[in-house]
Amino acid sequence: MDPDAVAKIFVEHYYTTFDTNRAGLANLYQDGSMLTFEGQQILGAQNIVSKLASLPFDQCKHTIATVDCQPSGPAGGMLVFVSGHLRLSGEQHELKFSQMFHLMPTPQGSFYVFNDIFRLNYA
Amino acid sequence: MDPDAVAKIFVEHYYTTFDTNRAGLANLYQDGSMLTFEGQQILGAQNIVSKLASLPFDQCKHTIATVDCQPSGPAGGMLVFVSGHLRLSGEQHELKFSQMFHLMPTPQGSFYVFNDIFRLNYA
Repeated sequence: MDPDAVAKIFVEHYYTTFDTNRAGLANLYQDGSMLTFEGQQILGAQNIVSKLASLPFDQCKHTIATVDCQPSGPAGGMLVFVSGHLRLSGEQHELKFSQMFHLMPTPQGSFYVFNDIFRLNYA
Repeated sequence: MDPDAVAKIFVEHYYTTFDTNRAGLANLYQDGSMLTFEGQQILGAQNIVSKLASLPFDQCKHTIATVDCQPSGPAGGMLVFVSGHLRLSGEQHELKFSQMFHLMPTPQGSFYVFNDIFRLNYA
């Protein structure tokens, strides 16, 4: 499958799940997965989802502006770089963000998130 | 050496070289290196440096806001995620950007850039 198509499907799935059922993101990470969220380093699917679930807003809506993708090396991984903005429930203001994912293949022919780095882009 | 320290030294070296001697960036890439610059895909050190040299401004100044770093897997690579802003010569206005690098180790104990994705973050 075309890497750009995989990246696009992943990004759509990730942010739709984030915006509608944050706990459902657990399936996308594994024990060795890493998240750096606004500089805070978190290791492992369970800790990552706990962190995302504990963010101080109930709902948000991501809008994607750009998705870029490159193969990360011979192990079959893929780097996905996203920019966009998000709106928290009850807020008028939109926040710009950038996020990168390193997707690694699973034996089942799917991908999981090995690396995840998220930053808000303050004006 | 501490990965965060490596990332910080790399980032400082990269943007200082970009701002003072863009052609000097050639040493940081290899034949298999990839750059996605504002959505345009470029392969190989020579093409990457040609692209960077051809950007329509003589000088610019990057200012770094954040640097995040994670190991990318058993091959000893490192993901470096940067946000900041840049000012072109003769322009008052600053442009915000995000950039990610995938650094891979060389046999000489140094690193080269295998993946590089750059995006301006428009307001």
